[in-house]
Amino acid sequence: MSTPTSTIRMASRTRTMIGSIIDSSTALLASQKHDIVRFAMGAPNAELIPTADFDRLLGAHAPGRYDYGATEGEPELIAQVQAFQQRLGIDTEPERLLITTGGMQGLDLAFKLLLDPGDLVVVEAPTYTNGIGTALSYQAEVIEAPVDADGMIVEDLPDIVARAGRAPKVIYTIPNFQNPSGTTMSLARRQLLLELAEEWDAVIVDDDPYGALRFDGEDVPAFAQLSPGNPRVVQVRTFSKILAPGLRVGWVDVDPALRAKAIDAKQAMDTCTSVPTQRMVADYLSEGLLDAHLTRLRGVYRQRKQAMRRIMTAQFGDDVTMTDPQGGFFLWVALQGRLAALDTQKLFPVALRHGVAYIPGPAFAASGRFGNALRVCFATSTPERMADGVARLAAAVDEQVAP
Amino acid sequence: MSTPTSTIRMASRTRTMIGSIIDSSTALLASQKHDIVRFAMGAPNAELIPTADFDRLLGAHAPGRYDYGATEGEPELIAQVQAFQQRLGIDTEPERLLITTGGMQGLDLAFKLLLDPGDLVVVEAPTYTNGIGTALSYQAEVIEAPVDADGMIVEDLPDIVARAGRAPKVIYTIPNFQNPSGTTMSLARRQLLLELAEEWDAVIVDDDPYGALRFDGEDVPAFAQLSPGNPRVVQVRTFSKILAPGLRVGWVDVDPALRAKAIDAKQAMDTCTSVPTQRMVADYLSEGLLDAHLTRLRGVYRQRKQAMRRIMTAQFGDDVTMTDPQGGFFLWVALQGRLAALDTQKLFPVALRHGVAYIPGPAFAASGRFGNALRVCFATSTPERMADGVARLAAAVDEQVAP
Repeated sequence: MSTPTSTIRMASRTRTMIGSIIDSSTALLASQKHDIVRFAMGAPNAELIPTADFDRLLGAHAPGRYDYGATEGEPELIAQVQAFQQRLGIDTEPERLLITTGGMQGLDLAFKLLLDPGDLVVVEAPTYTNGIGTALSYQAEVIEAPVDADGMIVEDLPDIVARAGRAPKVIYTIPNFQNPSGTTMSLARRQLLLELAEEWDAVIVDDDPYGALRFDGEDVPAFAQLSPGNPRVVQVRTFSKILAPGLRVGWVDVDPALRAKAIDAKQAMDTCTSVPTQRMVADYLSEGLLDAHLTRLRGVYRQRKQAMRRIMTAQFGDDVTMTDPQGGFFLWVALQGRLAALDTQKLFPVALRHGVAYIPGPAFAASGRFGNALRVCFATSTPERMADGVARLAAAVDEQVAP
Repeated sequence: MSTPTSTIRMASRTRTMIGSIIDSSTALLASQKHDIVRFAMGAPNAELIPTADFDRLLGAHAPGRYDYGATEGEPELIAQVQAFQQRLGIDTEPERLLITTGGMQGLDLAFKLLLDPGDLVVVEAPTYTNGIGTALSYQAEVIEAPVDADGMIVEDLPDIVARAGRAPKVIYTIPNFQNPSGTTMSLARRQLLLELAEEWDAVIVDDDPYGALRFDGEDVPAFAQLSPGNPRVVQVRTFSKILAPGLRVGWVDVDPALRAKAIDAKQAMDTCTSVPTQRMVADYLSEGLLDAHLTRLRGVYRQRKQAMRRIMTAQFGDDVTMTDPQGGFFLWVALQGRLAALDTQKLFPVALRHGVAYIPGPAFAASGRFGNALRVCFATSTPERMADGVARLAAAVDEQVAP
């Protein structure tokens, strides 16, 4: 009766699905070993999470909190999300909102509803690993659009699409403080992208976990502000980066007809999002605590970005170039000069041994490009800890470059 | 720029996806209107959920509880699940366990990893609505195997499969106190199903939310006990029915090779399951509270099943037949005699108006069969409340039958 596992027929999608480029046991080690400086995960550190408020709100008795919730989300949270979006300048209504199990489920839902096997998806290069992963899990074909200091180079898209030989079904973008590059798409490019989506009969999946974390410069209008009510714009949002990632609470803001299908789909994905965490987030917002928290985060992240750039420059000088984001969590660091040939994936275990973690560039492209780049999260570490981490990174680099 | 929604190209799967047969606003109304007797949702009522312990555990500070967790689940919860499974007589190991966002995500993961478009899935008829929904969302083809008092009629499967013209990739079963029929698959049929899965190169997706809730008779050995380590057996489990559904915490127990792929897939579905709820469940189990809770639940549900059968018989006599489950949550009620022509879907809004909710039979088959049957959950209501609910149901029936 015992069958070798290899003979079990898995779906063909399992051959193209990508997991973490860093295997999960290594990642777990990196997250648990006390003395590793964490530049890898895009997560706030414990001191920046309002744990006392969360503990208080979770511990207070609330009737019905452990029962099934509505698939579309708890009504009190939907109302709070609507008000929050409106404070950010984006009009919406409850009939457009669906609570998700983190932003990741928002992407999974959008791609599940939009993609047939073989459909074309434009993604930024580099982009969020699990964004590519989800598109591939629906057997879509992914094509890459390069990113520069103004985000996705939308002007190049018509040529890229012409070479692909067919129009994309989905254009996946992280317009603000992009993961991993930290860049923001310009207004002109957003307008052009809306036009191209119309021309190609495509949908823009607008994944914006970091937009509320702008600490410098002026907000660039969102797609939904440039084209209110446009059903071609699917907004994927999350509380992971502005409150806490362990909660797994996010939302999508979509045309009501797509939302109706999304509710059906979510019912067969996880029935509803964890009710106690939804209620806790709703209570946190209804107490008016989020806005002050965001103000604090923006100040801290501004300092940390500046510190990280200063420390990297002092340590590596002209051997690296870095982006200069106006918000969010990430710097994208490209190696050059005497480090141009260094492979950041091979460097990774060496860096871990030296006590510092980051994400190697190839994690951010299905094509495995960006071997000489890496993503650094400046949100997690204090400036003192950063200095340690960058010194450790330099020691690892020296060990690799001059063995 | 504004595009009518109907012109957005959704994936072809959205044409076959099934939502709730009862639209969600009706369901929400039914769950919120105070005076509706709830025979519909398969959920315990508030008095049976250990809310005081949950509130206490959620309110106690726990470091790291709001940060990202490992995709495979919190190590302390995996250890507690292993110990719990072993108390139920099923050997397992951490390398086989993956924590999921409820049992529903376990099904979604299993079907995502196993099904290509067009693959054949055998499901019980009737069966769990969202089990069919998830299979259809991966564009599988669903064929039905009837259920009798001993569960799926496995002896009929070879003929059913022969008529389909090809072997199934997945056999989806709820072997214990089946949803919605309440029946349990016999030992002989389990053994035959294991043999057929081997012959057909198929995987048994063993969805068992209710197995620990046996209140009469003897446990029938699980597939994993009959064939230890068999990679063709995927065990989908949940805390929803034995603790609380709002937590959204479940697990799968699978061959380690499939688990590795499941971790990759889950990473692109929701990254990890809500960490505070995982930790709370782990703490509840580590305090040794679950076993006493299960003993209490079994006693309560035994009484409630007996009460529901007694009250239904007193009310409807020979106009209905009912199953007699030895555990779980559900009775399957078929209308006959003077009620044989009654349509339980048409009856539903009338019943709601009379203040009682149930699930109409057609919700449990993709084919829309079982129009003269309905599922009644006996877990949610006290016997006093049940008597009210059944009287209201009788009034609704009388209004339909003799207008």
